[in-house]
Amino acid sequence: MSPERTIMNIANHQFRLAVRPVGMPKCSDWNYAEEPVRQPGDGEFLIKVLQISLDPAMRGWVSAMRSYMPPVGIGEVMRALAAGRVVESKNPNFAVGDHVYGMLGVQEYAISDGKGLSKVDTRLAPLPKYLSVLGMPGMTAYFGLLETGAPQSGNTVVVSAAAGAVGSVVGQIAKIKGCRAVGIAGGAKKCQYITGELGFDAAIDYKNEEVTVGLRKNCPKGIDVYFDNVGSDILDAVLAQINLGARIVICGGISQYNNTTPVKGPSNYLSLLVNRATMKGMLVTDFMDRYPQAAREMAGWMAAGKLKSREDMVDGLQNFPEALLKLFTGENFGKLILKVAEA
Amino acid sequence: MSPERTIMNIANHQFRLAVRPVGMPKCSDWNYAEEPVRQPGDGEFLIKVLQISLDPAMRGWVSAMRSYMPPVGIGEVMRALAAGRVVESKNPNFAVGDHVYGMLGVQEYAISDGKGLSKVDTRLAPLPKYLSVLGMPGMTAYFGLLETGAPQSGNTVVVSAAAGAVGSVVGQIAKIKGCRAVGIAGGAKKCQYITGELGFDAAIDYKNEEVTVGLRKNCPKGIDVYFDNVGSDILDAVLAQINLGARIVICGGISQYNNTTPVKGPSNYLSLLVNRATMKGMLVTDFMDRYPQAAREMAGWMAAGKLKSREDMVDGLQNFPEALLKLFTGENFGKLILKVAEA
Repeated sequence: MSPERTIMNIANHQFRLAVRPVGMPKCSDWNYAEEPVRQPGDGEFLIKVLQISLDPAMRGWVSAMRSYMPPVGIGEVMRALAAGRVVESKNPNFAVGDHVYGMLGVQEYAISDGKGLSKVDTRLAPLPKYLSVLGMPGMTAYFGLLETGAPQSGNTVVVSAAAGAVGSVVGQIAKIKGCRAVGIAGGAKKCQYITGELGFDAAIDYKNEEVTVGLRKNCPKGIDVYFDNVGSDILDAVLAQINLGARIVICGGISQYNNTTPVKGPSNYLSLLVNRATMKGMLVTDFMDRYPQAAREMAGWMAAGKLKSREDMVDGLQNFPEALLKLFTGENFGKLILKVAEA
Repeated sequence: MSPERTIMNIANHQFRLAVRPVGMPKCSDWNYAEEPVRQPGDGEFLIKVLQISLDPAMRGWVSAMRSYMPPVGIGEVMRALAAGRVVESKNPNFAVGDHVYGMLGVQEYAISDGKGLSKVDTRLAPLPKYLSVLGMPGMTAYFGLLETGAPQSGNTVVVSAAAGAVGSVVGQIAKIKGCRAVGIAGGAKKCQYITGELGFDAAIDYKNEEVTVGLRKNCPKGIDVYFDNVGSDILDAVLAQINLGARIVICGGISQYNNTTPVKGPSNYLSLLVNRATMKGMLVTDFMDRYPQAAREMAGWMAAGKLKSREDMVDGLQNFPEALLKLFTGENFGKLILKVAEA
C-alpha cells in the first residue's frame, strides 16, 4: 500500500464556520464536516493535529469587524493555533515525526508548506507548554508586559484574568522583574492558585469583592502598570487608581467579546489626562522575530522554578463548540487546550 | 499721600467659589465679593489684572474629583490664568509697568511674589496673544501635538474643537509640519474659518454632518494622529478610522465636563489593540521649562503669517459666570478672554 493511498483513505474531521455568531457562539454556528485527507504536494507536508489552542482571540476571528487579520470566511475551517506531528512530508525542512506549532485550524489533519509554522522540541518541554508559556499566550505576556508595559523594579503591576494563560505569566514575570504583582481573578480557587502557587503578592476575587476596594487595599502605592485582558468595569476601577505616567496595556477585552450591545468604553479614560498615562494596544505577532529569544529566556525561568503554568485539557475534537465557551464563562482554569489525539 | 494708603483704599472685586457646580456652572455657584487691596510685603508686588483667560480646564478645577491639582476650595477666589500689569512692587525682579502672565485668579487685583508668573513683552505681541497662542492654549497645542502626537510629514492629523484656542493652533502646526490637517468644529462659520483663514485641508461640521462620514471622506488615508479636546462620540468615530500605530492625544473631554451622569467612555477603545495604537494624556505644565523655546518658535511662525489666532473678548469682570458658559455651549469663537481693564 503506497503512502498516498493510505492518506487518501483517512477522513479529516473539521469544524467549519457555518454562520457568524451573534453574542456567545452556539453549536449551530459551526458545521462538523468531514473530508478526505489529500496527498501533500511538492514542498508540502501532512500534519496530524494533536492539541488545539483555544483562545479568546478566536471570538474576534469569526466576527466581521475590521481587525488585525481578515475574518474566517463562512464555510472555512475555523482558524486555530495548534500543535501537531508531521506524518508525511515532501518538504526537506520538515521530517516525519517532527512536532510543529502554528495555525493548523480546528481539524484532525492539516497540510502546510511550512510558512508560519515553527518546529518544537518535545524533549525540552512537553507539547502543551508550547501552546501556553512557550506559545502565543506566553509570548503575549512577555512582550506585552516587558515592551508595552515597561515595568520598573518596585512598580506595582496589576493584571486581570490573572489565572489565565496570559495573565498568570504576566504576574510571574512582574515578580521576576522585582515588581509587586496583583492579580484579579474570579473565585477563591483561582485567587489561591496565583498567590499560593505562582507567587503573586495579592489577588482580588472580582466575583466576591469590590475591585475598587481590593485595589485600594492591595496597591497602597497606586498602580504603575495594568495589563488588561478583560475591559469594562475592571478597567474603569484600575483607571481610577493609576499613578502618574502609568502604562495600560490593552491586550484584550474578553468581557466585551460576546456583546450584542455596544462595547462599554472606559468611563474613567480621562484619568489618562490627569495622570499623563498611556493606554496602548499590543498584538503579539508584531514581536514574532523575537519569539525564539523570549522562549529561551522563559524556558530558563521555567527550569529555575520561577515560571509555572497550568493547562486545562478538554478531550475530543467534537467537543470544540462547548469547550470554547469555557473561556467566556470564566470556567477554564489555566491554558485551555482541546486534545485531538495522543501526542 | 503714601502709596500704602492709596492701595488700601482700592476695592478688589473677586469671584469666589460658593458651592461646587453640579452639571453646568450656575451664577449662584459663585460669590461676587469685594475686599480691600492689601499692601504688598517685602518681595511681593501688586498686579492690576487686565485680561482673564477662560478655559475648559476651569470646570475641572472646581470639581472635587482627584485631579492634577487640588480643587479650588469653597470660599476661595476662582483660579484663573490672567495677564496683568504691575502697579506697585517690593520685588526687585518685577517693576511697576511690567506685564505678567500666570495664575492671578478671577479678580481685579492680585498680590504675588513672582512664583509661577512670567513677564510678557507687549512690544513683541499684543497682550491677548499671551493668553492664546503664546500662552497656555498655544503651549498645549505645541507640546501636545509635537511631543505626544509625534506627527510625521505626510500624516493625517485630526483635531476636535478645531476653531478653539488649542485646536486652531494644533491644525496650523500640523500644516507647518507637512501633515494633512482635518478639523472638527461646530457650525459653518467655524468650519469656514479653519479652512479659509487658517489653512486646514478640511473641516467637518459635527452639528450638520455625520462625523464618521466626514472622516471617511476627508481622511482617505486614515488617521495617524488625533488630538482630542472633546471625547464622547467624536472620539469613538475617530477610533474607528485610525491607522496602525496611531497616536491619540487626550488633551480634554469638554463634552463630558458638565455631566451629571457617568462620563461616556470610548466604546471603540479596542481599536487601540487592533491597530497597536496609543492613547496618551497630556498636561501642558509638564513642559513648563520648555515654554520659552516654544514661544520663540511660535512667534516666528506668527511673524511669517503661518500661525494665526483669534480672540473672543467679553467685557467686564462681573460677566464671568455667563462668559464661562460660552466654552461649554460651543458659542465662543477663538480664545475666550474676559477683559477686566484697559491694557
